[in-house]
Amino acid sequence: MNDRLATVATLAVNGPRLWQSLMELGQLGATEKGGVCRLALTELDRQARDLFVAWCQAEGCSIRIDQIGNIFARRPGVRDDLPAIGTGSHIDTQPTGGKFDGNYGVMAGLEVLRTLNQHGVRTEAPIEVCVWTNEEGSRFVPVMMGSGVYCDAFTLEHALTRSDHEGVTVREALAAIGYAGDVPAAVSAGAPRFGAYFEAHIEQGPVLEDAGIVIGAVTGALGQRWYDVVVSGMEAHAGPTPMGLRKDALFAATHLMQEVVNIAMAHQPNGRGTVGCVHVHPNSRNVIPGKVEFTVDFRHADDAGLLAMDAALRQAAAELSGRFPVQVNVEQVVYFEPVAFTPALVEAIRTGADRAGCRHLDIVSGAGHDAVYVARTAPTAMIFVPCKDGISHNEIEDADPTHLEAGANVLLHAMLERAGVV
Amino acid sequence: MNDRLATVATLAVNGPRLWQSLMELGQLGATEKGGVCRLALTELDRQARDLFVAWCQAEGCSIRIDQIGNIFARRPGVRDDLPAIGTGSHIDTQPTGGKFDGNYGVMAGLEVLRTLNQHGVRTEAPIEVCVWTNEEGSRFVPVMMGSGVYCDAFTLEHALTRSDHEGVTVREALAAIGYAGDVPAAVSAGAPRFGAYFEAHIEQGPVLEDAGIVIGAVTGALGQRWYDVVVSGMEAHAGPTPMGLRKDALFAATHLMQEVVNIAMAHQPNGRGTVGCVHVHPNSRNVIPGKVEFTVDFRHADDAGLLAMDAALRQAAAELSGRFPVQVNVEQVVYFEPVAFTPALVEAIRTGADRAGCRHLDIVSGAGHDAVYVARTAPTAMIFVPCKDGISHNEIEDADPTHLEAGANVLLHAMLERAGVV
Repeated sequence: MNDRLATVATLAVNGPRLWQSLMELGQLGATEKGGVCRLALTELDRQARDLFVAWCQAEGCSIRIDQIGNIFARRPGVRDDLPAIGTGSHIDTQPTGGKFDGNYGVMAGLEVLRTLNQHGVRTEAPIEVCVWTNEEGSRFVPVMMGSGVYCDAFTLEHALTRSDHEGVTVREALAAIGYAGDVPAAVSAGAPRFGAYFEAHIEQGPVLEDAGIVIGAVTGALGQRWYDVVVSGMEAHAGPTPMGLRKDALFAATHLMQEVVNIAMAHQPNGRGTVGCVHVHPNSRNVIPGKVEFTVDFRHADDAGLLAMDAALRQAAAELSGRFPVQVNVEQVVYFEPVAFTPALVEAIRTGADRAGCRHLDIVSGAGHDAVYVARTAPTAMIFVPCKDGISHNEIEDADPTHLEAGANVLLHAMLERAGVV
Repeated sequence: MNDRLATVATLAVNGPRLWQSLMELGQLGATEKGGVCRLALTELDRQARDLFVAWCQAEGCSIRIDQIGNIFARRPGVRDDLPAIGTGSHIDTQPTGGKFDGNYGVMAGLEVLRTLNQHGVRTEAPIEVCVWTNEEGSRFVPVMMGSGVYCDAFTLEHALTRSDHEGVTVREALAAIGYAGDVPAAVSAGAPRFGAYFEAHIEQGPVLEDAGIVIGAVTGALGQRWYDVVVSGMEAHAGPTPMGLRKDALFAATHLMQEVVNIAMAHQPNGRGTVGCVHVHPNSRNVIPGKVEFTVDFRHADDAGLLAMDAALRQAAAELSGRFPVQVNVEQVVYFEPVAFTPALVEAIRTGADRAGCRHLDIVSGAGHDAVYVARTAPTAMIFVPCKDGISHNEIEDADPTHLEAGANVLLHAMLERAGVV
């Protein structure tokens, strides 16, 4: 090993600088409770984008804005014709979001750029740090809009014509903040593919914290099937209607709600089942419910598991009509296929963690991320770090600075392994 | 048996006349779907009151209006110093109410007056038909306001100072429609007690229809205990949170909701348990519920049964915290004691049904009625007739004219038995 490679092997990001940048970014839209409210394509989003662009330009990066407003900050490679090694995430937040969700992945990428510059490390392939537009979907639906257009999950025109609650379209909002770029946004339209893509993110769940491990090597993302369920009985007065003559939609529905959890428990370790939303009709204290609507969110790491859960739900629904005097309707409304990240990149993350002296754990992402879409176009993997109590999408979202630093070091080494050090 | 008594024994109301009056009254506030919207103390309520008063005056009755707007139409007795034999109900309706709830009891009383006059039957005790103010409680709370003041369940002043959603008080509304009478409203203030009180009403439940029987001899009213229950867990993302690390408030709550029904089933025939109202927080499709609030409505014919149900609920709630990682809070918010109607009057109803050639069934009222309050001040019982499919508080509320006629005949004979025929 020559001196340069020995230096690279012990290269480390500047943790306090990373933290400082995260805190500075978190001032834009800061809430009283310590969170951030910075909805996609608002004036606050513009300020955050401008800050990111200024920071990257100060590092000598060129900036590319595509037609859906995705930002790519590029650090040239020695062989600049090679596909870039990318990283990034999003800087829009939930209305009552935190400082780390998305923002961490972008600031970790910036910290990689700064570290490489500070130590004069040159890579063969170029490095790109990107900000994907409207990952949260709080103001404009669909979620993961920028990366969705990029990977052709839906068309640019579809995305540009979506509107918020006040009728403002994505196209208008992009123009208003000066981020309606002219670079093609979709891979199908010529947007460049990455040679590899890594995304660092807080876990948004409790697994790493529970295991006492700092680095999650994310092997993929759970597939999802979402359903709307309606259980119909007969509305009647709670007083005059004897138990034996009731068609209580809620009593029946509670049995199916429990089955949602039981089915997920029967598909461990990676099955998940949640009833999140319930509407009871007429929802009056002394009226037997005539109709109950509820949602089901099933997730599993592989399609066979997800299909088995689907079949179990439909069977339980069919049996419910036999056990209780109700009708049941189950309609699937969303399907996301399970995603397996690229094994070589997952291994690069494990190796990077070893190099940074961090214990790591293979983990599956339960939530959607921009990387899940990017994975359709390039080798991809993700790095998770713990967040306090597993809490995210909440103003009290928090993370340990040393964990964030460790994740950025893993990102640095994984990217260098892929980009090649000259 | 002399001729007069023989005539009385076969005395019968005029069914078509009763039906015609009900339909005419139902025109005031008639809805497109065949129901009635005639909220308490509105202009429509005034029109309905005026119509009732005019009809009673045409029968030679004197009219008394008390301070809460209750109307008493009096047909003198031969011994006019005797306590009156009363009947009646209410003519206010739910916003989407039917033509029969309440209105039937008042029109049945009017039909008794008309029948006695038509056949020249004189009674020893006077007969009074009353309209109780604001039974429904849709515009002004509390419900059963007129009979509640009458029996001192709450004060006249409390009732007069209640206001609707637009800030109009009961006092103002009574004055506006010209029904702010000056006769004392409360028994404690000198309002006369009845010698006996009968109320005819549609069942508002499915029992009589299910049994194929026309007359329900109501032996009493179920006691009620209402609760607010809160189950608290931990809100978390449905995706990233493995099943084993969840504190799913809804999954836990469904077990307690089922216990509400199971407890009632264990207290048959007269126990009833209903979860009518459910609020899930944050009620988002992909968030594990952190908190579930729901209501419990327990009813039972006797206090011991109601207390046993209360104890079972509290035990189930306590056990829930042991079975699931949640906290549970149970708060009782309403208590109505069970009411036993006067056995002699219930027997008069059975005898009246026999005389009218109708099969009868002892039944317990699951709902509150003005008679439940009047029972605190005088011997009381109720007569139920079937309503179609047990449906009430609904524009499609319906009843069979022959059943309504039969109920009025039973009322006629029960009142005559108590009033004494000269």
